Amino acid sequence: MSEAAKTLDGWYCLHDFRKIDWALWKNLTSDERESAIQEFNSFLDKWDIMQQNKEGSFAFYSIVGQKADFMLMWLRPTMVELNDLENAFNKTKMAEYTIPSYSYVSVVELSNYMAAKDSDPSEDPRIQARLKPILPKTQYVCFYPMDKRREGNDNWYMLPMSERRELMKSHGLIGRSYAGKVKQIITGSVGFDDWEWGVTLFAEDVLEFKKLVYEMRFDEVSARYGEFGAFYVGALLSKERFAQMLTI
Amino acid sequence: MSEAAKTLDGWYCLHDFRKIDWALWKNLTSDERESAIQEFNSFLDKWDIMQQNKEGSFAFYSIVGQKADFMLMWLRPTMVELNDLENAFNKTKMAEYTIPSYSYVSVVELSNYMAAKDSDPSEDPRIQARLKPILPKTQYVCFYPMDKRREGNDNWYMLPMSERRELMKSHGLIGRSYAGKVKQIITGSVGFDDWEWGVTLFAEDVLEFKKLVYEMRFDEVSARYGEFGAFYVGALLSKERFAQMLTI
Amino acid sequence: MSEAAKTLDGWYCLHDFRKIDWALWKNLTSDERESAIQEFNSFLDKWDIMQQNKEGSFAFYSIVGQKADFMLMWLRPTMVELNDLENAFNKTKMAEYTIPSYSYVSVVELSNYMAAKDSDPSEDPRIQARLKPILPKTQYVCFYPMDKRREGNDNWYMLPMSERRELMKSHGLIGRSYAGKVKQIITGSVGFDDWEWGVTLFAEDVLEFKKLVYEMRFDEVSARYGEFGAFYVGALLSKERFAQMLTI
Amino acid sequence: MSEAAKTLDGWYCLHDFRKIDWALWKNLTSDERESAIQEFNSFLDKWDIMQQNKEGSFAFYSIVGQKADFMLMWLRPTMVELNDLENAFNKTKMAEYTIPSYSYVSVVELSNYMAAKDSDPSEDPRIQARLKPILPKTQYVCFYPMDKRREGNDNWYMLPMSERRELMKSHGLIGRSYAGKVKQIITGSVGFDDWEWGVTLFAEDVLEFKKLVYEMRFDEVSARYGEFGAFYVGALLSKERFAQMLTI
Amino acid sequence: MSEAAKTLDGWYCLHDFRKIDWALWKNLTSDERESAIQEFNSFLDKWDIMQQNKEGSFAFYSIVGQKADFMLMWLRPTMVELNDLENAFNKTKMAEYTIPSYSYVSVVELSNYMAAKDSDPSEDPRIQARLKPILPKTQYVCFYPMDKRREGNDNWYMLPMSERRELMKSHGLIGRSYAGKVKQIITGSVGFDDWEWGVTLFAEDVLEFKKLVYEMRFDEVSARYGEFGAFYVGALLSKERFAQMLTI
Repeated sequence: MSEAAKTLDGWYCLHDFRKIDWALWKNLTSDERESAIQEFNSFLDKWDIMQQNKEGSFAFYSIVGQKADFMLMWLRPTMVELNDLENAFNKTKMAEYTIPSYSYVSVVELSNYMAAKDSDPSEDPRIQARLKPILPKTQYVCFYPMDKRREGNDNWYMLPMSERRELMKSHGLIGRSYAGKVKQIITGSVGFDDWEWGVTLFAEDVLEFKKLVYEMRFDEVSARYGEFGAFYVGALLSKERFAQMLTI
Repeated sequence: MSEAAKTLDGWYCLHDFRKIDWALWKNLTSDERESAIQEFNSFLDKWDIMQQNKEGSFAFYSIVGQKADFMLMWLRPTMVELNDLENAFNKTKMAEYTIPSYSYVSVVELSNYMAAKDSDPSEDPRIQARLKPILPKTQYVCFYPMDKRREGNDNWYMLPMSERRELMKSHGLIGRSYAGKVKQIITGSVGFDDWEWGVTLFAEDVLEFKKLVYEMRFDEVSARYGEFGAFYVGALLSKERFAQMLTI
Repeated sequence: MSEAAKTLDGWYCLHDFRKIDWALWKNLTSDERESAIQEFNSFLDKWDIMQQNKEGSFAFYSIVGQKADFMLMWLRPTMVELNDLENAFNKTKMAEYTIPSYSYVSVVELSNYMAAKDSDPSEDPRIQARLKPILPKTQYVCFYPMDKRREGNDNWYMLPMSERRELMKSHGLIGRSYAGKVKQIITGSVGFDDWEWGVTLFAEDVLEFKKLVYEMRFDEVSARYGEFGAFYVGALLSKERFAQMLTI
Repeated sequence: MSEAAKTLDGWYCLHDFRKIDWALWKNLTSDERESAIQEFNSFLDKWDIMQQNKEGSFAFYSIVGQKADFMLMWLRPTMVELNDLENAFNKTKMAEYTIPSYSYVSVVELSNYMAAKDSDPSEDPRIQARLKPILPKTQYVCFYPMDKRREGNDNWYMLPMSERRELMKSHGLIGRSYAGKVKQIITGSVGFDDWEWGVTLFAEDVLEFKKLVYEMRFDEVSARYGEFGAFYVGALLSKERFAQMLTI
Repeated sequence: MSEAAKTLDGWYCLHDFRKIDWALWKNLTSDERESAIQEFNSFLDKWDIMQQNKEGSFAFYSIVGQKADFMLMWLRPTMVELNDLENAFNKTKMAEYTIPSYSYVSVVELSNYMAAKDSDPSEDPRIQARLKPILPKTQYVCFYPMDKRREGNDNWYMLPMSERRELMKSHGLIGRSYAGKVKQIITGSVGFDDWEWGVTLFAEDVLEFKKLVYEMRFDEVSARYGEFGAFYVGALLSKERFAQMLTI
C-alpha cells in the first residue's frame, strides 16, 4: 500500500452555478424585479460582513456561455453552515428565477507534499491564512474539477510517495511561476463530491488561465495523471454589474 | 473460474434522494405547507416505531449542493416492503413538492473474506446485529456506489480468491483504524442496481469521510480495482431542522 | 473471420418501463382514476387471453427505486405486433399519467453453443416452448442488458468458436445450478437495440438474483467479456396490488 | 500518414426521429387532429412527387420502443435543401405534437475500397443510381451510426491501405451474402455529425437485421475496429397505418 | 516535462447554438413575431457595424438536424465583452423563443509550431489579421471541438516538442491543400471550456468539410492523438433567409 499524502484542511467550500430563467424574469413587473434584487443584495451584504469578520468568504462571478449565468462560491468554517446557507438562498425570490446547473462541494486543502517538517501548521499564521482565505475579487475566475488518473500504467495512486513528491514539485514550480498573475485555491473533495479536487483560479487577465492550464498540461502530473471535468470561466459581478445584467 | 466470495445478506435497503421544488413549495399557503409537514412527520413517527420494534431502520439527512436537498435511507426485511414504502411515500403531499434525483437499491451485506470458519452466522448475535443494523444518527452522512474494476490487467474478478482475501485484509485494516470515528454500512447491489456496492458512512466530523476515502484510495484494492460513482454528503435532519429548512 | 454462433429466434420482446406522474394522477377525480384503471385492466385481460391462446405472453411488475414505477414486458410473434401494442397502450388514459423511462427491443433467443447437432429445432417441442415461452409469474423480476466486450486483449468476437463454446459451457453450468430457483429468459437485440442481449430473471426469492449474477461475475465469460447496462429489480403486480399502489 | 480511401458522394441525407406527445395530441378536437394529419399527408404527397421526379427520396417508418415513435429519412441533392425541408416540417401542425428525439446528418457514400479502376463513376449509371437511390419501401427498417475505432492496437486509421482493403473485402462479402434479403444504404457523416457513418438497412423480414449485424460482428472489421451507436428498428408507415396509429 | 508550444492569442470567441421553440413562436401574433425579428435585425446591424469598424466579427448560420436551429458565433477583443453580448442577447424577444442547446468559449489562436523565429508577431500585419479575423460569409459552416489524446501510448503531451512539430507539419500540409476551398479558424479553449480547441470551417461546398476531416483522420496527429466532440454543420443565414425560416 502506498503512503497517502497528509493534507491540511480549512474552510468548507460550495460552488453554486445557476442559469437565469429569462422568460420568467421578464414576466415580472419591474417592482417585483427590483424587490428580488434588493433581497439578493441584502444577502450579499450579509456575506460581506461575515467576510470582514473572517467568518467565511465568497466570490460572485458571471459565467460566459450557456453552462451558467452566474456562480456563487462560498467558504464557511463548517459543512452544515454551507448547507444552511444554500437552503436560505434557495428560498430567496431571486433563486426562484434561476435554474441550478452545477454545484461543487469541497474543503480548502493544502497538500503536504512540500511541507516543511518542523513547523506546526496550527501555529503558522501564513498556513492558517491559506486554509481560511479571503477570496480575491479579480476581474476573472476559472473553475474546474479534476482527478488523478488510475488507468493501466498511468496510476497515480500506485506510485511511491517519493515519486509523487518529485512530480508534484515540478508541478508546483509552474504554478509558482504565475505568482502575482494567477491566484489558485485548491479544494479537496474526496468523499464529498464526484471529482477529487476543485481548482479555482483568479486573475485580472483571463488569458493567464489558458497559459497556466496549457503549460501544466505538458507536465507529467497532468499529461499522464490528470483527468479534467468541465471548465467554467467568468467575469466579476458587483451589485451594479449584476443589476445591469438583470435590467430588462 | 474464480471462486466467488460468499456473502451474508441482511435487510434490504433503499436510498432515496430528492430535490425540493422550491417554486411550487413557496406557492402553497402556509396552512398547506404545515399540513404537508405534519403528514410527513407522521411517516417519520411510523418509521421510528418500526425501528424501535427492530422491524427496520431509517436515516434522514439534508444533502449539500445541487444534487439533492435530502436523502431518505430505509432498511426493511423484504424487498417488497421497500417497494410498498416508496410507493406510499410517493403519494404523500410532501413528495408532490419534490423531484426525485437519485435512488439506490441494495441489501446489507457482510463479505466473508475475513469470516471465521467455525461459527454459524445465523446463530451469532453480533453478525445478526450487523445484518439488521439500526442506522446511526450522526451529524453527517456520506454515500457513494462502487464497482470492482474489470479492465485489462486490473481485473478483480480474475484474481484468485487467496489474492483477493489478502488485498481485502489490508483494506479492512484501514476501515478498522477509523473505528469510533466512522461507521460503515456496506450494501450489495449486484443484480439490484447499476453498481456492485453502496457505501454509506456515518460520522460526527465530516472531515473523517475525506480522510478515510483518501487514505483508502492509495490502497491497492481501491487504487487498481475501485471504480466510484457519485458522492453525496449531508447533515442530519431532525423534524425541527427539516421544518426550519422548509419555512418560507 | 470468426465463426458466428447460430441462434434460434422466437417471439419478439418489448420491455417497457414507466414512471407514474403522481402529481397529475392525484389531480384526477377518483372517478377518473377508477376509469383509467378499468381501461388498463381490460388491456391486462386481453393480454391474458392472448397468453392463454399461446399468441404471446406478458409480465407486469412494479420496480423498486426511482428508475421506474412499473415494467410491462410483452412477447409477440412479430415485431409489428409489438409496435401496434405499444402504440395502443400509449393511447390509454393510464399511459397519459406515466412518463416513459426505458424500453428494450429484442427477440427470444437460444444460442446454439450447446446445441445437440442431430435434432431439428423446428420439430423439437421443448425448444419451441423455450422460443415461445409463457413468462413466469414469480414474486420478483430482474432485468439488465449486456454486451460481450471487444477491448484490447478482451475481445470476445475475436475468439475462435471452440474457445467461446468452452467458456459458454462453464457459464451455462452456473445458470443450471440455479434451476428451480431462477428462471432465465435470454433475448437477443443485436440490430434491434443498443445492447446485444437482454437478460430477464424470474425468482420467488429476490436474493437469488444477487447470488446468481455475483457468482457469474467471477466466471471468465463475465469477468473478462461481460459489459452490463442498468439493472432493474421489481415485484409482481396483480390487478389488486396495482390498484392499491394507485389508491390515493 | 496512411492513404485515405477516396469516396463517391451522392445525395445528402437527414434521418429525423420523433416521439409523439400523446397528451397534447389527445387534447385536440378530432377536427384539429384530422387537419394536422391532412397537412402532413400533403407533405408526404409532395415528397412522393419529388421522388417520382428523381429529385430526392424519403422513407417513413414507425419505431419500436420508447426511443421514438416514427422516423422520417430524406435524401436531397444539396444540404441546404435538407435544411429548408426540416424547417418547413418544423412549422407543420403535426410537428407541434412531436418531440424531436434524434437526428442524423450525412451523405450517401460509396467507398472505393473495391472500386474498379478503369471506369469513370460520373458516367456509370449503376453507380449514379446507387449515389442517388430511391429508398426501398420494405416492411422493416434498421438504423445505426458507427465509427472505426482508434484505440491502442486497434486503430483503423493507422492501418495501411492494403490491409484496410483486404479487411473491407471480407466485410463486403458478408453484406453481399444478404443480397435480396437486406438492402444497405451507407451514408458518410465525417464532418457532418457525431459518428463517421450511418447505416440504414431495409428488409421484409426483421430478423435479417439481427442475423446480418451479428454475423458481421465476428468479422475483424467490426470485432476489432467497429464502434456502434444507438440502434433503431421500425415498421413501414403508410398514410393509412399512420392515421390508425394516431386515431384516438 | 515537455516543452509547451507557445501560442499567439487574438480575439475572444463565443459559439452560441439555439433551437427555436416552434410551439411558442407559432403562438405569437404575426405582429409580435415581426417585432421580435426587427429587434433581432437591429442586433445584426449593430454587430455588422462593429465588424466594419474592426471591433469584432460574427457569423450567423442555420444548423442542419435536431441539435440546433441556428448558430451565432461572435468575436470580441475581451472576454467580458462576449459576456455582456450574450447577456444582452438573452434579454431579446427572439431569445425568449429559443432553447440554448450548446455553446463554446475560446480565443482565436495561432500555434507557433511552424512560426518563423525572426519576426515579431505584434508587428506582422498578416499575423494580426489572422488573430483578429473577419469571419467569412461562405454558404456553409462546420464546427467541432477537439482534444489531443492522453491515453496509454498515445499521449500527445508526453511527446517531445520536436516530434510534435514534425507531426503538426504534416497535419498543416493537408489543411493547406484545401486553401481556397476551406477556411479554418482555430480557437483555443484550454482553461475556458471542456475541450482544448474549437475548429470552425467555412466553405462554399459542404462536401469539402467531409473531404478535409476524413483525409486528416488518417494523419497520425488525428489518427492516434485526436479526440473529437460533436459536429455541427449549417448553412448561411441572411436576414432574408432567417425571416423566411421564421415565417408561419
